[in-house]
Amino acid sequence: MSRIGFIGLGIMGTPMAAHLVAAGHDVTGFDLNADARAKLTEAGGTAATDVAGAAQAAEVVITMLPNHPQVEDVVLGTVLDVVAEGTLLIDMSTIRPETSLAVAEAAKAKGVRVLDAPVSGGEAGAKQATLSIMVGGDEADFTAARPIFDALGKTVVHVGPHGAGQVVKAANQLMVGGIYALVAEAIVLLEASGVDAKAGLDVLAGGLAANRILDLKRETMIAREFQPGFRIDLHHKDMGIALAAARQVDVALPVTGLIAQLIASARAQGYGSLDHSALLKVIENFAGRA
Amino acid sequence: MSRIGFIGLGIMGTPMAAHLVAAGHDVTGFDLNADARAKLTEAGGTAATDVAGAAQAAEVVITMLPNHPQVEDVVLGTVLDVVAEGTLLIDMSTIRPETSLAVAEAAKAKGVRVLDAPVSGGEAGAKQATLSIMVGGDEADFTAARPIFDALGKTVVHVGPHGAGQVVKAANQLMVGGIYALVAEAIVLLEASGVDAKAGLDVLAGGLAANRILDLKRETMIAREFQPGFRIDLHHKDMGIALAAARQVDVALPVTGLIAQLIASARAQGYGSLDHSALLKVIENFAGRA
Amino acid sequence: MSRIGFIGLGIMGTPMAAHLVAAGHDVTGFDLNADARAKLTEAGGTAATDVAGAAQAAEVVITMLPNHPQVEDVVLGTVLDVVAEGTLLIDMSTIRPETSLAVAEAAKAKGVRVLDAPVSGGEAGAKQATLSIMVGGDEADFTAARPIFDALGKTVVHVGPHGAGQVVKAANQLMVGGIYALVAEAIVLLEASGVDAKAGLDVLAGGLAANRILDLKRETMIAREFQPGFRIDLHHKDMGIALAAARQVDVALPVTGLIAQLIASARAQGYGSLDHSALLKVIENFAGRA
Amino acid sequence: MSRIGFIGLGIMGTPMAAHLVAAGHDVTGFDLNADARAKLTEAGGTAATDVAGAAQAAEVVITMLPNHPQVEDVVLGTVLDVVAEGTLLIDMSTIRPETSLAVAEAAKAKGVRVLDAPVSGGEAGAKQATLSIMVGGDEADFTAARPIFDALGKTVVHVGPHGAGQVVKAANQLMVGGIYALVAEAIVLLEASGVDAKAGLDVLAGGLAANRILDLKRETMIAREFQPGFRIDLHHKDMGIALAAARQVDVALPVTGLIAQLIASARAQGYGSLDHSALLKVIENFAGRA
Repeated sequence: MSRIGFIGLGIMGTPMAAHLVAAGHDVTGFDLNADARAKLTEAGGTAATDVAGAAQAAEVVITMLPNHPQVEDVVLGTVLDVVAEGTLLIDMSTIRPETSLAVAEAAKAKGVRVLDAPVSGGEAGAKQATLSIMVGGDEADFTAARPIFDALGKTVVHVGPHGAGQVVKAANQLMVGGIYALVAEAIVLLEASGVDAKAGLDVLAGGLAANRILDLKRETMIAREFQPGFRIDLHHKDMGIALAAARQVDVALPVTGLIAQLIASARAQGYGSLDHSALLKVIENFAGRA
Repeated sequence: MSRIGFIGLGIMGTPMAAHLVAAGHDVTGFDLNADARAKLTEAGGTAATDVAGAAQAAEVVITMLPNHPQVEDVVLGTVLDVVAEGTLLIDMSTIRPETSLAVAEAAKAKGVRVLDAPVSGGEAGAKQATLSIMVGGDEADFTAARPIFDALGKTVVHVGPHGAGQVVKAANQLMVGGIYALVAEAIVLLEASGVDAKAGLDVLAGGLAANRILDLKRETMIAREFQPGFRIDLHHKDMGIALAAARQVDVALPVTGLIAQLIASARAQGYGSLDHSALLKVIENFAGRA
Repeated sequence: MSRIGFIGLGIMGTPMAAHLVAAGHDVTGFDLNADARAKLTEAGGTAATDVAGAAQAAEVVITMLPNHPQVEDVVLGTVLDVVAEGTLLIDMSTIRPETSLAVAEAAKAKGVRVLDAPVSGGEAGAKQATLSIMVGGDEADFTAARPIFDALGKTVVHVGPHGAGQVVKAANQLMVGGIYALVAEAIVLLEASGVDAKAGLDVLAGGLAANRILDLKRETMIAREFQPGFRIDLHHKDMGIALAAARQVDVALPVTGLIAQLIASARAQGYGSLDHSALLKVIENFAGRA
Repeated sequence: MSRIGFIGLGIMGTPMAAHLVAAGHDVTGFDLNADARAKLTEAGGTAATDVAGAAQAAEVVITMLPNHPQVEDVVLGTVLDVVAEGTLLIDMSTIRPETSLAVAEAAKAKGVRVLDAPVSGGEAGAKQATLSIMVGGDEADFTAARPIFDALGKTVVHVGPHGAGQVVKAANQLMVGGIYALVAEAIVLLEASGVDAKAGLDVLAGGLAANRILDLKRETMIAREFQPGFRIDLHHKDMGIALAAARQVDVALPVTGLIAQLIASARAQGYGSLDHSALLKVIENFAGRA
C-alpha cells in the first residue's frame, strides 16, 4: 500500500480518493473547498491544509485539476519543490499534451517520475471505479502505478510516452463531439422529413452507423432531455485541447475544427450547463427547426 | 408465393433475386447485362428480354437500380405503363427522396402501390440475406411485402410515409461518412503525436466514442488496407442524396456539408474505387502526413 | 437591328427587354404574367400569347428564367422546335452548367446557335444597363451577340466554351456568399469584444481585406438593415448551382460547402426574403449574439 | 520629439525604428541579433546591450515582437520593472487580445500607460511607412502617440479600449485568409471546368465579388508564383490568435474555424515559407487538381 497525496477533490477527485482509501492506501488530500476536504476525512482519508501538506510525505502524488493553469500552479509551483526524489506524480487532469510534456521535463530535472493519465467515463465512472484511463510515460512507472489505476478504472492502457495519455483523451473527445453532431444532424433531417425519428435511429443503430452514443442517448435526445452527464462547458474546454494538440504536432483536422465551433456555439448560446448531447440544440437552431 | 419482376441484376440485385427464387417465388428478371440475366436463370429464375417483359405479368415489381435517372427511366418510362392496377412496386434503389415521392405520386395515379425500400449492408449483406431494409410507404403495403423483405434482410423497419426509407438511408450514410472522417482524424492525430494508434483506438473503442466502424475497420485503416467493401464513388453518390434530402425539406446540416466535400475530395484525388475507409487518405493528405 | 424574342419578363427581364427596344430592336416577348406582358407593350415591344409566339419569327431568342427546369421546359420543350435553323439563342438565366451543356447539344442537333450568358448586378444593374455578363459559347456567336449585350451591361466578357458563363457566375456567387460570411464573422467578433465595429471595419476596408461588400454594405450590416437587394432565397439557389458545378467536374470545395450550408441556414431560419447580407443573422445566432 | 526605446528589430522593427530616427526622435533599440542592432546605429539610432538598457530612460517604449511569450518575457519580465511611472508603452506586436489585457493590467499597477497597436501592410508597409495601425487603449494615450504612429503608417485608427487593436487585427487576418481561400476555390472551379481563369477572375473583379486580393494577386496565383510577401507560417500564427480572441469572448465563428484548418494544412503540407496566397495549393490538392 502507498502513501498517496491527492490534490483536487472535485466531482471526480472525491470518489476517486475514496476508492483509494477503500483499497487500503494511506491518502492525504487537499482541495481549496472545505466541504471537499471534509468528505475525504469522512471517507477515511486525511485532509491537508495546503498543497505542500498533501504532497510532501507522499510516495505517489495524484493531481485531478480543472485545466493546465491549475496544473502549472500546483505542480510546477509547489509539488515538485516539496516531494522527495523518486516520487511518482500521476496527473489525471485533462490538459493539453504540451503542458504534460513541460511537467515531465520539469519533473525529470528534479528526479521525479511522472505519468499523464487522463480519464473518461465521467462522474458515474469515477463513482463506480469504471473509468477508462489513458496513460502516457515510461513503462516502468506505468507498471508501478498499475494497482492504483486498477482501484479507479476498468480499462487501463499504456498508450505511449509522456503526453500520449492526453493525446488519446483528445482523440476521444473529438470523436465523441463529432458523433453527437452527426446524431443531431440525423435527427434533424429525419424529423424535418416527417420520418419517425425513433424508428429511423433504431435502424441506424443496427447497421454500420451503430455507436455507443446512439445506444445510450438517442431516446433522451429525441425527447430533448439534456440534464448532465458531461457538460458542454467541459467539452468546450476539451475541444480547445484537441485543437491545441493538433497544432502542437502541426497537423490540420478539418472536421475537428468545425466540431469545436459547434460546441463553442452551444456554450455561446447559453447551453454550457447542459449535457453535451445538447449539441442537438445548436444543430436544430442552425437548421431552422427550433 | 408471388410472381415477382426483378429489374436491375447488379452486384446487389443478383444475390437478392436468387434469395427470392430460393424462397419459392416465381422471379422474372431483367438487366441490360446478358451475364446477369444468365445468372438469374442458373439460380432458377426466368430472364426477360426487356423491362416490360419482366414487369408486365408480375404481382410485385422490385427495382434495384444505380440512381434516380435509371429509376425514372424504368419506372416512369415503362413499368407503370405495363403493370396491372394493384401491382406492388418496391423500389430498393438508393435515390433521393424527391424522386421516391414523384414515383409514388405517378404510381398512385395509375392505381399502383409503391414502397421505397433502400438497403444497407452492402454486397455481403445481399449475399447473406442480412440487409437492413428501411421502408417508406403505407403500412398495409409494408405488411404485404414483409415476406419478401424477410427473404432478403435481417433488420426490416417501416419508418414512415413515401420517401421515408430514402431519408433514413441518407441519414445512415451521412453518419457513416462522418464517423469514418472522425476515426481518420483520430488516427492522424495519434500517429503525428507519436502515440501507438492501435493502443489508442483500443481505448476509444471501450468508451463513449465506441462505434461499429472502429470495431470493424480500425486495424485495416491503421494498416492502410482499403480494398472495398463499399466504394468511395458510391458513398459520394449517397452524400449527394443526403444533401439533396436536406435541401428538399429546407434544413441546413453543417457537418454533412463538410463530410460531403471530404468524400468528394477522396474521389477527386483518385480514390473512388477504394473502400470508403480510404477517407483516411484525404485526411492524412490534408494533415500533411502523406 | 434584330428581331428578338424575349421569354421571361420578371424583375430582371422587364427592364432588359425595355433596353433592347430602346436600342432599336424589334422585341416580341412572353411571360406567364399578364402585367409583365403589358409592361413590355408599354415599353414599345410586342406581347406574344405563348412561348412559341415569341420565339418563332425571331433571329435572336433570349431566355431569362428562374432555374433549370424552366429552361428545359421552354427551350427543349418549345423554342428549339419552332425556331429556324441558324437562330441565335441566348440563355441569360442563372442555371447549372450541366443544363447549359445539354441545351447546347440539343441546339446543335437542330442547327441553332446558343450562348449561355448569365448576369450579375441584380435589379439595379438590369435597370441601369450596367450588368456584368459572363458568356460561354463560340467566339463567332459572341461577336454576333455583342450589340445586344452592350445594350444591357457594362462588363461583357467571353469566358470560354458552352457552360463557361454559368461556371463564372457560380464562382462569383460562391465568392460573394463567402465574403458576406467573413464580414459577418468580423462584425460579430468586433462587437463581442467591445470594439467599435464601424471604426474596425473602416481600418479593414483600407487594407488587404478590402472588398466591395465591405464598401457597400458595412454600414447597413452594422445597422442590421437587410432590405433586398438580392434575396437569400436566390443566393441559396445559386449555391446549389455552385455545388452542382463542382460536382460535375469532380472537384471538392471545402469553403463553398460550408458557405452553402450557412446560406441554407439563413433560409431555414426564415430570412429567405431578406438581402443576402442577412447572413449576418445566421452568424450572430450561431455565435450566441442574437 | 521623444526618447524612444525600441525592442524587437526584425524585418518590421528595423525599418520602423529607422523612420522614427528620421522623424527626429531619439531612438535606443535592442534586439538579440547583433546585425539588427548594427542596422539601427547605421540609421542613426543607439543600440542598447539588453532590454533594460533600451527601456529604462525612454519616454516611450515600443515593442515589436514575434508572439505573446516574447511580449510576456520582455514587458512583464523587464520593461515594467525598469521604466519610470508615466512612461507610454506601445506594443505593436500581433498577439492575442488576452495578453494585451494582461499587459495593460500589469502596466496600470505600475503607473505605466499602454497601447496595443498591431499593424498590417507587411514588410513593404513598414519600409514605406504606409502601415495600417489599429490602436487599443485610452484616447488620451492614443493622442499622445499620434506623432509616432504618423511616422510609421498611413491609416491610423483608435478602435477601442485595451486589446481592441488586437481584435481588429485578428478580424483583418481572418478576412484575408478567408478571401484567399475563396479566390482559390474560384480558380480551381474555373480551371477544372475548362474556363479561362484569367478572363473569369477579370469579370469577378468588376462586380460584387471585387476585392483587393483579387486585384493584387490573381495573376500570380494563376501563375502559381508564391514568393512571400506574408508567409503562411505567420498567417497560421495569426489564425491561432483569431480563434483565441473568439474563444476569449465566447463567440463561435464557423468559417474562421475552417479557414484556420486550411492554413494549418498549408503549413503541415510544407508550404509554411511561401506567401499566404499558397493556400491555393491546399485547395487544389484537396480538389484533386495537383
